[in-house]
Amino acid sequence: MLRALGQVSRRDLLTMIGAAAGSAALYQAMTTLGHAQPSPYQGPIKLQGDPGTVKVLILGAGLAGMVAALELRAAGYEVELLEYREKAGGRCWTLRGGDTYTELGDFRQEIGYAKGNYFNPGPWRIPHHHHAILDYCRRLGVKLEPFIQKNHNAFLHSTAAFGGKPQRFREIATDFRGHTTELLAKAVNQGNLDEMVSEEDKEKLLEALRTSGMLDQDFGYVKSQHTSEFRGFQTWPGGGAKPNPIPSDPIAPGDILQSGLWRWLGVAETVDHQETMFQPVGGMDMIAQAFEREIKDLIRYNAKVTSIKQDETGVTVIYQDTGQDTGIEGEPLETRADWCICTIPFSILGQIESNFSDGVKSVIDKVQYAGSVKIGLEFNRRFWEEDEQIYGGISYTDLPIALIGYPSSDYLSTGKGVLVGGYNWDTAAYHFTSMTPEERINKALEYGATIHPQYRKEFSNGASVAWYRVPWALGCYGVWDDREADYSRATALDGRTLMAGEHLSYLPGWQEGAILSGLDAISRLHARVMSG
Amino acid sequence: MLRALGQVSRRDLLTMIGAAAGSAALYQAMTTLGHAQPSPYQGPIKLQGDPGTVKVLILGAGLAGMVAALELRAAGYEVELLEYREKAGGRCWTLRGGDTYTELGDFRQEIGYAKGNYFNPGPWRIPHHHHAILDYCRRLGVKLEPFIQKNHNAFLHSTAAFGGKPQRFREIATDFRGHTTELLAKAVNQGNLDEMVSEEDKEKLLEALRTSGMLDQDFGYVKSQHTSEFRGFQTWPGGGAKPNPIPSDPIAPGDILQSGLWRWLGVAETVDHQETMFQPVGGMDMIAQAFEREIKDLIRYNAKVTSIKQDETGVTVIYQDTGQDTGIEGEPLETRADWCICTIPFSILGQIESNFSDGVKSVIDKVQYAGSVKIGLEFNRRFWEEDEQIYGGISYTDLPIALIGYPSSDYLSTGKGVLVGGYNWDTAAYHFTSMTPEERINKALEYGATIHPQYRKEFSNGASVAWYRVPWALGCYGVWDDREADYSRATALDGRTLMAGEHLSYLPGWQEGAILSGLDAISRLHARVMSG
Repeated sequence: MLRALGQVSRRDLLTMIGAAAGSAALYQAMTTLGHAQPSPYQGPIKLQGDPGTVKVLILGAGLAGMVAALELRAAGYEVELLEYREKAGGRCWTLRGGDTYTELGDFRQEIGYAKGNYFNPGPWRIPHHHHAILDYCRRLGVKLEPFIQKNHNAFLHSTAAFGGKPQRFREIATDFRGHTTELLAKAVNQGNLDEMVSEEDKEKLLEALRTSGMLDQDFGYVKSQHTSEFRGFQTWPGGGAKPNPIPSDPIAPGDILQSGLWRWLGVAETVDHQETMFQPVGGMDMIAQAFEREIKDLIRYNAKVTSIKQDETGVTVIYQDTGQDTGIEGEPLETRADWCICTIPFSILGQIESNFSDGVKSVIDKVQYAGSVKIGLEFNRRFWEEDEQIYGGISYTDLPIALIGYPSSDYLSTGKGVLVGGYNWDTAAYHFTSMTPEERINKALEYGATIHPQYRKEFSNGASVAWYRVPWALGCYGVWDDREADYSRATALDGRTLMAGEHLSYLPGWQEGAILSGLDAISRLHARVMSG
Repeated sequence: MLRALGQVSRRDLLTMIGAAAGSAALYQAMTTLGHAQPSPYQGPIKLQGDPGTVKVLILGAGLAGMVAALELRAAGYEVELLEYREKAGGRCWTLRGGDTYTELGDFRQEIGYAKGNYFNPGPWRIPHHHHAILDYCRRLGVKLEPFIQKNHNAFLHSTAAFGGKPQRFREIATDFRGHTTELLAKAVNQGNLDEMVSEEDKEKLLEALRTSGMLDQDFGYVKSQHTSEFRGFQTWPGGGAKPNPIPSDPIAPGDILQSGLWRWLGVAETVDHQETMFQPVGGMDMIAQAFEREIKDLIRYNAKVTSIKQDETGVTVIYQDTGQDTGIEGEPLETRADWCICTIPFSILGQIESNFSDGVKSVIDKVQYAGSVKIGLEFNRRFWEEDEQIYGGISYTDLPIALIGYPSSDYLSTGKGVLVGGYNWDTAAYHFTSMTPEERINKALEYGATIHPQYRKEFSNGASVAWYRVPWALGCYGVWDDREADYSRATALDGRTLMAGEHLSYLPGWQEGAILSGLDAISRLHARVMSG
């Protein structure tokens, strides 16, 4: 039946299937046709036809640049890739024991983590709907494990609520849902919403509210065995001759509301943070390494681009060796190609001499970059697991560290462990950016100790990355002031160059955006080449 | 300061700390003293003092029996353990390719799964608050990985709703929350709840509702970029020159309510199913194997107990070899000990000759066992990941299979995969119990194919366990008719015997209950022995 697709339109086909076989068959057909959930990634890219002898120069060996290099070479292109750093990956980056990292201001950090421990300064999780990066992980053999985003046993913390005592997520989430649902049930029962809810729906609504709000027979949210099965017990169920479990007291509605802790309840309900999320086993840069293995021979490392000039037939780029390996900056070198895919972040690109069109140049200058600071703290033992039974997930706080992220690997192991001791934005990030790496660690320890008093005793060592100080990025991800006005100009072919990277996507800051942008750029480039 | 505990009461101490140092210090002290979250497990058991030459006979090498054997031997007891099967673990059980299993009715199954694939017929997950089993996993070196319980991309399915089309969890969850929150915001804004909500709280409540309900400026739950960030998009965000993401249409409130799919939204919010949950890497019986390695020398396998007789000074047990290895049932054998820990399920124990007290005997007869059928289906490829982007988690349905559970391991791998094709209780379980294993598989395929049409094409082979037919359990877990009347009698020392197992706990059906029950039994036995 599917072979009929050539003759009839997709909509006609669906109507035929629907009429013949009922809606379940229709749905199945829709799923099979990829219609029900249109995704911007439809499986491995197909660049059909022989491009002939065409060279593409790619600037930047982050994920956008590497996916472009991988697929263009597979399609028959000659590819050259220039990368500023001594390794590939860009913001897909992992710091491990023995690594060194020097940021602007000459702040040099030697990472002291124990063997096997790591910290991802940039992206640290992959959502379930990021089909492209997941597919590349599959194809390139990158092993994934769940990234625990939501943990009911982690903490929510406000300095102004509950005397500064951290609260368990499960208690706040349960009580917020219970109390608000009780209110709604009262309004429904009092007939206040009769205009909005039909008599038929009203009965179902009350049944649903009783279930979802854990309400009793009188539609009350009260201390009980039942509500404790959600929020946790005063004394938990045991075995043998141990006494009955003792229910816990819900927190009063006003205390929950005034605490503001409800602000974090929905974070893990967004498609970008819903279960199931992933991380590569061993660190995010396992993805970068997997790409790099495939195309290492195409990459010129330590190459600092200083000029990009286009003409009628191609692009000429001047670059020099950064001296990373030799200690001496190299002489200017020149390379040329028919086309260019430029994945250099606009924050850097704006400082490079070029003859892009004025329109594109103005957009390059206009796009801002978000700042962020992320801190990885290693401790001598996993006290968050051993003492507090927090296995992965995130505690949120209104302190400037913003959150504490617990490792989603090596659960219950006895060695040292690394947690994210802070991951902040905006004002807090500016403050942390202005500090030395040592000061950042001290601040993170000071703040974090109010949530985990074990911090001071168990601290081993730490690392931090302030993204505004990262020499090759000068920021975290691109932020569009006026996407409607500028975006299409920046993504369009400008002379012989196409821009790509997370900043040229609707998924800013996500690796998926970088990959989709890279794939989209090469498919348009290929179409242009094949059209002659 | 903590050394003062001997002199002052805990409450006095806490008051002192609180007065001296403010509530944050008080909380920290409470946490340190294990006061804030009383758990029935307080770390490794300490059986202090030399019991002398005392022998304990343990019946049943499930987790309750094995933890008792392990700890009693460590405390200096002579221990003998009789086990009906050819291996230890009991319901902590995993079926793998090459295994055979014969249930009552002489239904023999040869498991045909590919190497590395498995199916847990009994327990398959460990909650975060099951401190005892997690601690034994840590101590015995059992590697754990997250068990994905909740998956926003899995399905909710009702034959009577949406034309039988499965719906994504994220869509139902988001729309239910959005619509109900909108109703509550309306009631609050209309002043209907002014008696119940103070003016001060009202403002916070509206702010919280707008956040949690994803409401717009007019407190409406509407189609938008924002609500699509929770429920998913019509067209998902892409990269490069791909068009803007297109928001999706929320499902109408009445359709959500009438569908009944909301009944499953709260499953993963209970403490028993909240993130983070665990499973042992490689199958649940990795825990059984870890215990077994420690105490293998104490176990007499293939030992069918036929009589338990107590007298003033000890317990005499008659057993015979089941003939599992030899094909011939053995002659009656006798063993004797000072004390007995009996972990045989009451469903079996009621059929064994004994001279327990009449009170205990009546409870043994009174406790019912729940029935359940679980089905493990192996498919040639992981279509649920490849086609539907479901990575772990559970789809729920009102079909008799009740659920489909996706494997929480080997994500994105390309070989065969095993999912739980059904896990039912009550009426549905009775029906499935009456079928042959082959019929069960066929039924599971028939039902499951309405959710995953790929079932028929991709099916490889399957296995099932109907717990009422399991010869050594005759059911799934103990259900107390009248716990208040009977429980303390059954857990008390009866002559020279203490009962243990999940049925003697407040955590029925959970491995934690078995372990806590075993630990409680031996600590009471030890106290009795030491008191002379």
